[in-house]
Amino acid sequence: ENPNLKSGQVEIKAKKLIILSKTENDFPFDLNQEPHLHLDTLLDNRSIALRYKKFSSVLKIFETIIQSYREAMKNSGFTEIKSPKITGLASEGGANVFELDYFGQKAYLAQSPQLYKQIGVSIFERVFEVGPVFRKEPHFTTRHLNEYISLDAEMGFISDFGEIMDELEKAVKFVFEKVGKENKRELEIFGVEITSETLKNKIPRLELAEIKKIIKNKYNYQIPEGIEIDPEGERLAGKYAKEEFGSDFLFLTRYPAEKRPFYTMPNSENPEKTESFDLLYKGLEISTGGQRIHNYRQLINNMEKFGLNPKGFEPYLQVFRYGMPPHGGWGIGSERIAYKLLNLSTVKEVPFFPRDVRRLEP
Amino acid sequence: ENPNLKSGQVEIKAKKLIILSKTENDFPFDLNQEPHLHLDTLLDNRSIALRYKKFSSVLKIFETIIQSYREAMKNSGFTEIKSPKITGLASEGGANVFELDYFGQKAYLAQSPQLYKQIGVSIFERVFEVGPVFRKEPHFTTRHLNEYISLDAEMGFISDFGEIMDELEKAVKFVFEKVGKENKRELEIFGVEITSETLKNKIPRLELAEIKKIIKNKYNYQIPEGIEIDPEGERLAGKYAKEEFGSDFLFLTRYPAEKRPFYTMPNSENPEKTESFDLLYKGLEISTGGQRIHNYRQLINNMEKFGLNPKGFEPYLQVFRYGMPPHGGWGIGSERIAYKLLNLSTVKEVPFFPRDVRRLEP
Repeated sequence: ENPNLKSGQVEIKAKKLIILSKTENDFPFDLNQEPHLHLDTLLDNRSIALRYKKFSSVLKIFETIIQSYREAMKNSGFTEIKSPKITGLASEGGANVFELDYFGQKAYLAQSPQLYKQIGVSIFERVFEVGPVFRKEPHFTTRHLNEYISLDAEMGFISDFGEIMDELEKAVKFVFEKVGKENKRELEIFGVEITSETLKNKIPRLELAEIKKIIKNKYNYQIPEGIEIDPEGERLAGKYAKEEFGSDFLFLTRYPAEKRPFYTMPNSENPEKTESFDLLYKGLEISTGGQRIHNYRQLINNMEKFGLNPKGFEPYLQVFRYGMPPHGGWGIGSERIAYKLLNLSTVKEVPFFPRDVRRLEP
Repeated sequence: ENPNLKSGQVEIKAKKLIILSKTENDFPFDLNQEPHLHLDTLLDNRSIALRYKKFSSVLKIFETIIQSYREAMKNSGFTEIKSPKITGLASEGGANVFELDYFGQKAYLAQSPQLYKQIGVSIFERVFEVGPVFRKEPHFTTRHLNEYISLDAEMGFISDFGEIMDELEKAVKFVFEKVGKENKRELEIFGVEITSETLKNKIPRLELAEIKKIIKNKYNYQIPEGIEIDPEGERLAGKYAKEEFGSDFLFLTRYPAEKRPFYTMPNSENPEKTESFDLLYKGLEISTGGQRIHNYRQLINNMEKFGLNPKGFEPYLQVFRYGMPPHGGWGIGSERIAYKLLNLSTVKEVPFFPRDVRRLEP
């Protein structure tokens, strides 16, 4: 018994010591201290900065998020697919997509598995995918990554888009519950706890037009003209959800048709609105989804309305000519869940090695 | 009771019929018949050809392969990582890599998560990843894809490269066992059964030099000069494993140093050989792996021997300067497992939507 030991400390008496590997330099960081360095320094030296327990804990929590998402989907009868990431077609219609030369053909990196998961519905009724997506968005914000892991799902034979939100809500709550159980120690480092209280209420659903009025009247904030909702608007919507419903989550629904992709199902009574939604978590959009157009003619008409040439989409449209059920789904930006859950300074603290406009290495 | 019904048939009396979606054309294939069409026709029309039970069954089996691989890795204490697919560095040293413009910087699509999973070892000791990799290989064969799902793993604190093979063998057998149990119906379509007999024996391990002699003496086949082993050699090695050991699997070990990547650990007694292996299944390489160099100086020396400039690898080498344990791992070409298991005509029948030199769509 060593009287110099403090509570919790132990003494090991070594009989033999084998050095497996020597260091070349002194370690540049003090791992026993809180990491007080600038974010850029930490990200530039990410491969060794990850030896801080705090940073590797984010990766452990992220692991639980993707693994429990898969479990939730499997439990609900979804089949896992792996769609190609190099494609001949820009899925959302063209902007912000990385191009590459594919044996002499012009190719793109998939911005989402959108069209492939819709095809998946025609085969398995319900499909999901966990995989990287790539966005050439020149944004310098705390919420954007140019490569991220998207948690996608698509389901057929729905009667309305509320069923999609039901399924997404179930999945998200399952994920949070799992993280709460399996990552207690990691959550502690961030002073975060996930209680059943957080997860018990049904997530409120409000039409976008409605929340815009509330934001204006209650918080005296006017969302700029021509924008469906901006980050400040989302923040205030999240504040409202917390104050009014005690909820960290909020579904905003029925986004205007002109602001959603060509495949989005218009509302039957007012076709300027769509059967679509965003899911906010602590005032940040973490998921986008909705019902899709399943009728071939309606889809062709909508593409033309959006100025897209259906000919370029031929290999994907084929499936719509032979009967598609009413269907819809969502995509989740998985890193944003961990970002907001752990109150990190930026979403860039979540990926193993983040990619942003300037950061291509390490 | 309808007397015209054959055994197994049932009659449904509909009270109401709702048409959810009409077809535009007659379906071009007869889904009640075996698919007798040319492979190119089927792949060109893949989105509707997947309505054949036979083709969608391949996807169901593939799903079990990737899900059970993850389960095996998790059971063995591996942490799941998601490494970036856009990188500033061609991981294997430069050839056959897709390039793209990344906001004005030259970037590459990852050919493997190699360097990232090695960094992973320094954080979590054992890591794995299931994700897409991209190879700009101009091969027109039945065994190559230009985008495929790689099942990767890397483990630290090993005492020799045999431990890596032990762990890989355990994972592969777990995967086959799961497919045998969970995909009985799908396997039946292909007349395939997975018996415990197949999985009970330890996978034989033979040095490459040894198998080359056996192939020469027993099958009178000379592997061409300057090649470690060619497809015909692998086929005969597989034949030998089956005849001699009753095994569908075979580890070939100790590949020559000049034929393996720069990070491969040389054999301590004969540095012209390496602590590396390929795993063959039915005479086809399905996995490549081995021990890696963990000493910083040795790694730098080896890079120079391979004509690589360590400066370009700086962000990845950093981790080796601060102590790396002896480690190694593998990558598995997941589609090849299903290809050989189901005796398909080509590996292109496995992915949801395959990518080869000419096929960028659908």
